[in-house]
Amino acid sequence: MSEMEQLYLDDLHVGQRFTSGSYVMEAARIKDFAAEFDPQPFHLDETAAKASVFRGLAASGWHTAAAAMRLLVTGGLPFASGIVGLGGEIAWPKPTRPGDTLHVESEIVEITPSRSKPHQGIVTVRGTMFNQNQEAVYVLTAKLLVPRRTTRK
Amino acid sequence: MSEMEQLYLDDLHVGQRFTSGSYVMEAARIKDFAAEFDPQPFHLDETAAKASVFRGLAASGWHTAAAAMRLLVTGGLPFASGIVGLGGEIAWPKPTRPGDTLHVESEIVEITPSRSKPHQGIVTVRGTMFNQNQEAVYVLTAKLLVPRRTTRK
Repeated sequence: MSEMEQLYLDDLHVGQRFTSGSYVMEAARIKDFAAEFDPQPFHLDETAAKASVFRGLAASGWHTAAAAMRLLVTGGLPFASGIVGLGGEIAWPKPTRPGDTLHVESEIVEITPSRSKPHQGIVTVRGTMFNQNQEAVYVLTAKLLVPRRTTRK
Repeated sequence: MSEMEQLYLDDLHVGQRFTSGSYVMEAARIKDFAAEFDPQPFHLDETAAKASVFRGLAASGWHTAAAAMRLLVTGGLPFASGIVGLGGEIAWPKPTRPGDTLHVESEIVEITPSRSKPHQGIVTVRGTMFNQNQEAVYVLTAKLLVPRRTTRK
């Protein structure tokens, strides 16, 4: 990311938007991730998944969330100090499927300078992950710690 | 989980509590997870992490979240149909560190039978992940889809 613009609190404004690169959700990775972190039949096996509420193999929501983080960290949200989240809200309006090509569109919805720590602020970002059919599959509204630009080197 | 009690909507009540097994956060897995999903210096390298806001290597919050899901799925929340989340709120009050032994304590905070789909309901569960010092490191308040017990075989 060294060639990219690196943004500080001073550079941000409400309504500012960012678009990430893309992530392809592979069937093998869906199953391996699930085996480690979310071993439920609908994330592990096509046949079991067909009979489930998902009606077909679906990635763990946490795999989807982790993929979204990868997209944000690798250029989707070019904050100078990285992406440090305090928490937020998440939703999975649709499952992600094998072969889906996913990207994240983010928008700054609130900026709150810190009273106690004048060198930083809390920035609320809403990121929506879309699949190749422009269906929203994941929405993350997160509070991020973002530093001010300093005059110190 | 076949030997465990499997709970349906009918079996749940507000205030009901569950305790998971434990998960050890390994330094090598912290770095590998971060390399794949959250490649930021404070999750990848001890020296860089020391100079960061985390003041030492910390797991990605999404690794912590995924580990919590593993604990819930493998006995921490014995729902008959598995754990299917629609979304929720997350917070990371403290980082998780290499060598931390983590577990999740969950409590049912709300039960809302579905009007349109009488065979299921939405159960809100608050899960708090603690480290070995009983410090809360992660809190997930999630809305889960839970089916009623049916008389059909």
